[in-house]
Amino acid sequence: MTIAQKVRTVMEKSSWIRKMFEEGARLKAQHGAKNVFDFSLGNPNLPPPDEFGNALLDIVSTCGPGSHCYMPQPGHPQVCESVAAYLSEEQGVAMEAADVLMTCGAAGALNVILKALLDPGDEVIVPTPCFVEYRFYVDNHGGEFRTVPSKEDFSLDLEAIEAAINAKTKAVLINSPNNPTGQVYSEESLAALGDLLAAKSRELDRVIYLLSDEPYRKIVFDGQKVPSIFKAYDQSIVATSYSKDLSIPGERIGFTAVHPSATYKEEIMAAMALTIRILGFVNAPSLMQRVVADLQGLSVDIDIYQRKRDLLCNGLTDAGYEFDVPPGAFYLFPKTPIEDDVAFVQELQKELILTVPGSGFLGPGHIRIAYCVDDDTIVNALPGFKRVMQRFK
Amino acid sequence: MTIAQKVRTVMEKSSWIRKMFEEGARLKAQHGAKNVFDFSLGNPNLPPPDEFGNALLDIVSTCGPGSHCYMPQPGHPQVCESVAAYLSEEQGVAMEAADVLMTCGAAGALNVILKALLDPGDEVIVPTPCFVEYRFYVDNHGGEFRTVPSKEDFSLDLEAIEAAINAKTKAVLINSPNNPTGQVYSEESLAALGDLLAAKSRELDRVIYLLSDEPYRKIVFDGQKVPSIFKAYDQSIVATSYSKDLSIPGERIGFTAVHPSATYKEEIMAAMALTIRILGFVNAPSLMQRVVADLQGLSVDIDIYQRKRDLLCNGLTDAGYEFDVPPGAFYLFPKTPIEDDVAFVQELQKELILTVPGSGFLGPGHIRIAYCVDDDTIVNALPGFKRVMQRFK
Repeated sequence: MTIAQKVRTVMEKSSWIRKMFEEGARLKAQHGAKNVFDFSLGNPNLPPPDEFGNALLDIVSTCGPGSHCYMPQPGHPQVCESVAAYLSEEQGVAMEAADVLMTCGAAGALNVILKALLDPGDEVIVPTPCFVEYRFYVDNHGGEFRTVPSKEDFSLDLEAIEAAINAKTKAVLINSPNNPTGQVYSEESLAALGDLLAAKSRELDRVIYLLSDEPYRKIVFDGQKVPSIFKAYDQSIVATSYSKDLSIPGERIGFTAVHPSATYKEEIMAAMALTIRILGFVNAPSLMQRVVADLQGLSVDIDIYQRKRDLLCNGLTDAGYEFDVPPGAFYLFPKTPIEDDVAFVQELQKELILTVPGSGFLGPGHIRIAYCVDDDTIVNALPGFKRVMQRFK
Repeated sequence: MTIAQKVRTVMEKSSWIRKMFEEGARLKAQHGAKNVFDFSLGNPNLPPPDEFGNALLDIVSTCGPGSHCYMPQPGHPQVCESVAAYLSEEQGVAMEAADVLMTCGAAGALNVILKALLDPGDEVIVPTPCFVEYRFYVDNHGGEFRTVPSKEDFSLDLEAIEAAINAKTKAVLINSPNNPTGQVYSEESLAALGDLLAAKSRELDRVIYLLSDEPYRKIVFDGQKVPSIFKAYDQSIVATSYSKDLSIPGERIGFTAVHPSATYKEEIMAAMALTIRILGFVNAPSLMQRVVADLQGLSVDIDIYQRKRDLLCNGLTDAGYEFDVPPGAFYLFPKTPIEDDVAFVQELQKELILTVPGSGFLGPGHIRIAYCVDDDTIVNALPGFKRVMQRFK
């Protein structure tokens, strides 16, 4: 074979996704991009906050020679300090710079973590529906990706998680607010998950880590708060990014932080300083590290996403779609009226509406609608959404 | 185990390197950083060219909303186009944007390439001495790292490479100008290597790729040119970065380019668009892509590195060190007068001189001196270099 068999298999398996994207591109070429309603990508449409542009310009205008040099693998020390200070408040647990490692986004963070933790055959349990790239991240480092279903309302099914834990379990990986469901896990369910993992770690005599991928933490509505992971369980590791907070996903900047009381914190931090290097990241981009250091806690105006959510939810309810109104992220994950979600997505394409089948997130029988788009796109797509639903009712 | 056994082993094996770095840090703390002569890191000491700062400021001042969004995995199309246009001249082979994928530096590029190519057990042949991280990059993706010695003058030993090629060989990975030796491979030796790989590919009925890691391509002295890889062999892939050209290693920006006539070019490019995503890079940092697009062919003033090389080489020749004057990069790799290069490095530390043992580059019996440092550091270290040599002569 001229390319890796595993990579070829992924490419073949995902060829229907590619075909759908190609169909989307074809529709845009044929009808003009602005006449196609593209809800397929989680690419934030809000511009970065003004503070981001100002901080970037300020740093670029004043940075001296050496500003773009290598730095210690975990990142510029003062940047790690800023992040730790902010995290201490956010998570309600006192953090130090040494608990933080800056990364190329949350995807980079997860790969750095998994490479540091996984021995061949170690299992990582992931509740579904989920961001399907997790499967690749786990596989990259020789782990086994093991899914458990979530409850009907997409909250954590603790019994399912408990049943899946075994002597090979190294970690449970959660994502709240969730892509693709928009669900946020409650404080009670996280506390119960922490208790479960602590009990199972004792029983199996191995640390089972809780990995929390939380790039949507700041995108929650109706005054909700995303509960602290670190308060729920001390063998926990956070991975996140500034991609959604600041609408800068192309810059690849994020971090990972290990619970300050994690039993093997020093070893994990040292391992991650190695894995970020040998995976080829080396370090998170230097300039963006400096920029985000000054912007801790900042986010785009979340009310705008809430308005979009409400616009979409109201319209789709009228059109007969079934879903719980999601408390966070910028995704809606309604049920499809037919079992075949790919077919339903193809029907929507006939109305020039692009969405992603739930199967692509291990949540068949649903579609994911990314509503980080212009209000007009939502408003103008609603009649098409309705027409398609009527064909099946 | 609480961290991956493989990672733990690497950490333990490299503990002597860590000890040396710790000793260096201790010496700096004790004597003041400016009184310690640190030749241990390949961190360019020249500031980026003015054009870099100007382009960065210009782009930051004018970039509109959406400038920091996701883009196609291979990079901003206009950036890939700029790179392809420049590469066409540099390599002497007509390239298109579709042949280029922007990466997080050369280390990111190599991981993206190897993940795309390697099946479990596939071998990658690397001439030594070499940048020892290659071993990890190959291992990350299930490959076998296979070394072959170079000739006495660190040029390619084609017989050794031929003898190492077998039915599991997937690629030969070279690095010219070389870290740690500073050697540049001649056009004749590259042509002969290309012929060898073409013949062996036919014989073994599998494509054997030539991977060329060339972040030091622009750092050559005495009017030399680094020969084109693409002219030497059409199943070849370049990995490189702007880290050394522009003194911006912390920004993690580089690219990979596949020979436009490579038999499986489309498959490799598609595979790399997948592997850059699933390894967690997702894409090269957006802003820096735009900046380097406008700076094709630019580099820091190479004459300054040449002057530093000459200053160091003249001084060390006087002091009795043995080496060939290297034509490129910013490393000198002299022989140690004793077999134990680690012991010799420790002797240099007593003179507050920090270098790296050749063993760390699979080139025992040598030390690597990174002379990307202030002239004063070189001048003031020479007496110490001399005293240590005198102890062994």
